[in-house]
Amino acid sequence: MAPRTAADIRRSNLFQVLRRVFAGAPTSRQEIVAQSGLSMATVASIAAELLDAGVLLEVAPTTRGKGRPLTRLALDPEYGSFVGVDVAETYLHVTRYDAALTEVASVRREVDGEDDRVRSPEDLERHLTELLAEVAPDRSTVRAVGISVPGLVDDETGVSVYAPSWDWRGLPLRSTLSERWSLPVHLDNPLKALMVSELWHDPGAAEANWAVVNLGTGVGAAIAVAGELYRGASNSAGEWGHTTVAVEGRQCRCGGTGCVEAYVGAPGLVAFIDQVAPGHPWTSLGETAAVQGLSEGVASGDEVAEQVVAAAGAYLGAGLANLVNTVNPARIVFAGWVSDLLGDALLAAARPGVEHQALARPLQSVTMTRLTRPGNAVAFGAATFALEASLSQAHTEGSR
Amino acid sequence: MAPRTAADIRRSNLFQVLRRVFAGAPTSRQEIVAQSGLSMATVASIAAELLDAGVLLEVAPTTRGKGRPLTRLALDPEYGSFVGVDVAETYLHVTRYDAALTEVASVRREVDGEDDRVRSPEDLERHLTELLAEVAPDRSTVRAVGISVPGLVDDETGVSVYAPSWDWRGLPLRSTLSERWSLPVHLDNPLKALMVSELWHDPGAAEANWAVVNLGTGVGAAIAVAGELYRGASNSAGEWGHTTVAVEGRQCRCGGTGCVEAYVGAPGLVAFIDQVAPGHPWTSLGETAAVQGLSEGVASGDEVAEQVVAAAGAYLGAGLANLVNTVNPARIVFAGWVSDLLGDALLAAARPGVEHQALARPLQSVTMTRLTRPGNAVAFGAATFALEASLSQAHTEGSR
Ligand SMILES: [Zn+2]
Ligand SMILES: [Zn+2]
Repeated sequence: MAPRTAADIRRSNLFQVLRRVFAGAPTSRQEIVAQSGLSMATVASIAAELLDAGVLLEVAPTTRGKGRPLTRLALDPEYGSFVGVDVAETYLHVTRYDAALTEVASVRREVDGEDDRVRSPEDLERHLTELLAEVAPDRSTVRAVGISVPGLVDDETGVSVYAPSWDWRGLPLRSTLSERWSLPVHLDNPLKALMVSELWHDPGAAEANWAVVNLGTGVGAAIAVAGELYRGASNSAGEWGHTTVAVEGRQCRCGGTGCVEAYVGAPGLVAFIDQVAPGHPWTSLGETAAVQGLSEGVASGDEVAEQVVAAAGAYLGAGLANLVNTVNPARIVFAGWVSDLLGDALLAAARPGVEHQALARPLQSVTMTRLTRPGNAVAFGAATFALEASLSQAHTEGSR
Repeated sequence: MAPRTAADIRRSNLFQVLRRVFAGAPTSRQEIVAQSGLSMATVASIAAELLDAGVLLEVAPTTRGKGRPLTRLALDPEYGSFVGVDVAETYLHVTRYDAALTEVASVRREVDGEDDRVRSPEDLERHLTELLAEVAPDRSTVRAVGISVPGLVDDETGVSVYAPSWDWRGLPLRSTLSERWSLPVHLDNPLKALMVSELWHDPGAAEANWAVVNLGTGVGAAIAVAGELYRGASNSAGEWGHTTVAVEGRQCRCGGTGCVEAYVGAPGLVAFIDQVAPGHPWTSLGETAAVQGLSEGVASGDEVAEQVVAAAGAYLGAGLANLVNTVNPARIVFAGWVSDLLGDALLAAARPGVEHQALARPLQSVTMTRLTRPGNAVAFGAATFALEASLSQAHTEGSR
């Protein structure tokens, strides 16, 4: 949705400036004006405020060509640090960034085995507290923590409304952890984190209709309308993982049948291995090992891996074509741990199906790419939404 | 999209007032303020302008209870008339309305037989010219004509970009007919017409995310985001009729396989009759007769009809659940000639599938209803988009 109130517009302009300073690294006020369409008065006023607060710094002008040298702006790493947390079904990933969003420390803990599985909210809180201590031994330098949790999240109240992996409902994670850590905590889901991450790396995407597809244990999509997350009538738009591509097909954990996720989520890939090669060793060590096995198998030309990827790719292709035909996005970005391990092969296998099923016009206008930036995009996105939320609060209060 | 420029906001406010005057029939400025959230200054200024132009009139106050009697506003039927045209694959329907949008004259011509089929743009132009003369013998009273054409339409240039039924591309229908008739002509597709029609009958829908599903020879959807048609990256969002519900399913006329339309469009229903009862007499007389036969069959408990509707309903249910899970609309409105004849039975047959496949949260927040207003909703919508376009032009010019 486009911003509608004065406070929305102020917040949106603030984010535009921050994201463009990060993406330009460094960049001038003039460049921000040219790229964003904001007025120089707006950019100069936001920049002054952020310089004043210590969020930005000015870097020495570099002279290129014959133009007048321009003072450039950059995020000041000294402003403090932000922590991004990616809570997944099979692992927990916690990364600390300086305030210029450079990774400082990162730790990942597998919770895929019988012993270390997360069974209760208390398990999760204990794990996260230990991991936070590892990346940020001195918590006083941390400005805020952003946490991505799968499922339905109410970002305003900081409540995990429904986490299907553990069947938790109404968990007030933000207040619990914020109190325990004495730090500001912000909560949202991985799709929101991925979308914000993309908007920091490519602020031009703010103008377009596009989508992020998350491939992991669960499968989902986030749809951006004019650069903002489209939430639908009850904040549950984008449940693309549970759209039917095969009436009376495979049973899905949502209770439905023939959903995209039942074929393309990690457990769906394991099921294909079982179909193609019953008793194959990849399937005995959990989802992560199975997808890792498929990834290595594809690289070495293993026949089982190729058959599994081809089979899953056919369903993924139909699902992606449905997204293309219904939503007509300018691009689809793939992320998530299954995408990281197997995304290129899956996308290649899906492409013929997309081309067969999508109509010419929306097909022509869409590009599909796997997110290949180093680091964990969900953790990065969680850190940026924490940074945005804390600055937005200060900024809105400052402007009153 | 929410309105972004001053001209957009002015236009949107104008439409709000017009639609609420029509839906209130008559209504007071105070009621419009209360319902729309617009300021009294805005409503009063738009009303004054429209009274001045002769679009609105004031009706004598009626006293109810103890309140001060309020002057009420209504559309003035004397302002002129507007013609709405529904061009479908199997029929042409032309209706003239007075400027209060009351139907004055209506004519429908079947073009489903071998002799009368529309084969060329010239055929269509000839038919429409004859039908216009029937509903409006005196063309001088007509303010504007709105034409709905299936397929991809560029409303700004008035070009039928692609009409799949006839395989026409880039047809400049607006300029051809506008010149031939010496009248303002506005072109869009049936989904846009249906959406505008809904916004006139229920202006409160302008706040919500919702969808119109068109069931006819072709099948499609229009998605509203914050009350405005969502067009996507290249104006082709809502091609829901060509989303896959059965990988490797039935051949569709789009070239894909297993699309919703291949099972639920009129030719898809004919194919089910052929499957259930090969050689059945319903199928020998064309799509319209076949769907008519199914409609009567369902009413009389005919077994073939019930089997066909159950079979098609299963695919429709999966397709609707996909729309619910992806877009999370507050409501879905069904329209189109197949919906008019068979909508209740098809919806009843689809409901178990929707409930099985849609996730709990988006399912809870959606209502699904068939459009049951008298008259042709597409023709009505075409007349309203013609009315809106002509007033919007005058209004924007007047405010300069
Ligand atoms: Zn599912
Ligand atoms: Zn199709």
